Amino acid sequence: MRNPLAEHVVEIKPSGIRKFFDIVSEMKDAISLGVGEPDFDTPWHIRDEGIYSLEKGRTFYTSNSGLKELRMEICNYMKRRTGVSYHFNDEVIITVGGSEGIDIALRAMLNPGEEVLIPQPSYVSYEPCTILAGGKPVIINLKAENEFRLTAQELRDAITDKTKILILPFPNNPTGAIMEKADLDAIAEVIREKDIFVISDEIYSELSYKGDHVSIVSLPGMQERTILINGFSKAYAMTGWRLGYACGPKEIIAQMTKIHQFAIMCAPTTSQYAAVEALRNGDADVEMMRDAYNQRRRFLMNAFQEMGLECFEPFGAFYVFPCIKEFGLTSEEFATRFLNEEKVAVVPGTAFGDCGEGFLRISYAYSIENLKVALERLNRFIERLRAEKQ
Amino acid sequence: MRNPLAEHVVEIKPSGIRKFFDIVSEMKDAISLGVGEPDFDTPWHIRDEGIYSLEKGRTFYTSNSGLKELRMEICNYMKRRTGVSYHFNDEVIITVGGSEGIDIALRAMLNPGEEVLIPQPSYVSYEPCTILAGGKPVIINLKAENEFRLTAQELRDAITDKTKILILPFPNNPTGAIMEKADLDAIAEVIREKDIFVISDEIYSELSYKGDHVSIVSLPGMQERTILINGFSKAYAMTGWRLGYACGPKEIIAQMTKIHQFAIMCAPTTSQYAAVEALRNGDADVEMMRDAYNQRRRFLMNAFQEMGLECFEPFGAFYVFPCIKEFGLTSEEFATRFLNEEKVAVVPGTAFGDCGEGFLRISYAYSIENLKVALERLNRFIERLRAEKQ
Repeated sequence: MRNPLAEHVVEIKPSGIRKFFDIVSEMKDAISLGVGEPDFDTPWHIRDEGIYSLEKGRTFYTSNSGLKELRMEICNYMKRRTGVSYHFNDEVIITVGGSEGIDIALRAMLNPGEEVLIPQPSYVSYEPCTILAGGKPVIINLKAENEFRLTAQELRDAITDKTKILILPFPNNPTGAIMEKADLDAIAEVIREKDIFVISDEIYSELSYKGDHVSIVSLPGMQERTILINGFSKAYAMTGWRLGYACGPKEIIAQMTKIHQFAIMCAPTTSQYAAVEALRNGDADVEMMRDAYNQRRRFLMNAFQEMGLECFEPFGAFYVFPCIKEFGLTSEEFATRFLNEEKVAVVPGTAFGDCGEGFLRISYAYSIENLKVALERLNRFIERLRAEKQ
Repeated sequence: MRNPLAEHVVEIKPSGIRKFFDIVSEMKDAISLGVGEPDFDTPWHIRDEGIYSLEKGRTFYTSNSGLKELRMEICNYMKRRTGVSYHFNDEVIITVGGSEGIDIALRAMLNPGEEVLIPQPSYVSYEPCTILAGGKPVIINLKAENEFRLTAQELRDAITDKTKILILPFPNNPTGAIMEKADLDAIAEVIREKDIFVISDEIYSELSYKGDHVSIVSLPGMQERTILINGFSKAYAMTGWRLGYACGPKEIIAQMTKIHQFAIMCAPTTSQYAAVEALRNGDADVEMMRDAYNQRRRFLMNAFQEMGLECFEPFGAFYVFPCIKEFGLTSEEFATRFLNEEKVAVVPGTAFGDCGEGFLRISYAYSIENLKVALERLNRFIERLRAEKQ
């Protein structure tokens, strides 16, 4: 029998995140600080709206681009949070999580061989989705000394004649880095000058601990060249509902909707009804969860300082990204030994790009109690590593 | 500003199904016989299980390939219905409807330029998804005189050195055609001889009115070269839940799971819990709905006969595909006039391929009461057309 597989797909590495969880799920007394998912259940009033829609028998397809009420609420939300107006009719599409939004934006925009700039460390799907869409990923290695922000110079240096899209992944998974307005102003200038497009993945936009998140779409000339990706998973603790959205210029949204129609049909109906409720009455929940994350974030930063573990202060998402270079182990070696010797799972920075070497992603979407135990074990572990080196 | 779009995506035509529904939704007293969706609500005990999972706070991601219990139930179901054994661990993936399954199967398997055989008339997504995956669609025009079955000779004639995949869309949307065991035996022989692969879209497998549906995976040597697509939308009236699955050889499922992980993450969690209930306790619901569809199907066939409207008897799905060539109008002209003059929406056969010219897709996923009114209008309309011709 001949080979059934597509060569370029076989060459894509599977995500490096999951590996440790297969081990941890089998290990007694193990603690995971690895999953990129809120530890909160979806707030009750949002679940209740999902339940109500099921009771009412709303079990049919919605329109391809999603419930009109939901698209209208998203436009209200965008106006409120970014100051930017989108029209619900042709500038918004409801997707299966932010993930699908990224995938279909790349599919809608990339001709074969066109280049996509991907700042790393960053979420694991940008590079494979670019390859799957026929594009060429070009990695920009972000630097710890810049607090893992993207600088205008780094962007400028990476642009070629074939560059079409910049992926802008802030607030960032895994580093927790954010881009403030001045940072964005500097790169927007390059983007306009070089006439490229942006896919701005703002799934963590509600989890910013240093003033409100600033979206690049709010800067001059940027709305018309940006696909903004957002969703309900992180802000409203709705990961399992698989619901996100994309806002952008209508000619791009039209092509994304066409792909979505053929490949997905529509996002899940129950989730769409629940999401309307989230946008209408979920602000207090978001604030409560953000406060909880922020408390944990500061708790971790303090603990790292006491341990003498180097870590820049991240102001977004729910991750810290400490540096472990002092121990002379690779990220993978550190994470493996930490799991085996202390039964705590963290993700090696290299799962998010080669330039993540020497760092770990630690999620604080876990209770303070859990974090305390994990930090005791981390303290013991690094003391042992330091002793070994002497 | 430069063109943001991918050329091959712009060239894909949007689905021809939706057009009439935008009109019909604005038209007073209009009846639609157009939508490809069960008219039943999801059975209560299945919705109740979804509700229970929300009450319990099961709002988190599942594993990428889906809940283990669901994959196990799917393997039980496949064994029961086809006699074929799949392993839940690496030969099944839970997808966002059958649609995603088709999309990721094509993405996992197609190298640039490889050919996909698509028998038409058939569902609208095969051709665009093939193009999106970088493949080349090769259309096989099915014939009314064969009751729109695929023959071994038609298959053989279409195969070239570049042929990699045959899409096998039976029970068929839009024709209602089925393939019986003898039909499948004949084409399986060609498939094995020519060493090609099959994506068998069996989403309507439970809606067969002439004995049980036969799956091509049950024939010798076919399991190892077939991706079987199925789901919950049609059999259990669960369209809005967006839940399907693919079963196949583990090396193909592994690549599909990789794409799914990056582009989708996982199928909606609530839907997965509900689907477990559907497979465990939903047989009686399927039977009830199948009986209702069958009654409507026979009602339509009788009515067509009385009107003198030519139509082969379809034994699958919930569509009839009458021939309207006698009226000297194109399918599009007939459907447009029928909608404007009698306020009934049906879909032109050409929405499913050029060889659908001269036919209409009429869905009987509507109540007998609705169908009766629609048929009165159809009768009046064709009498008028016949009078015009004299």
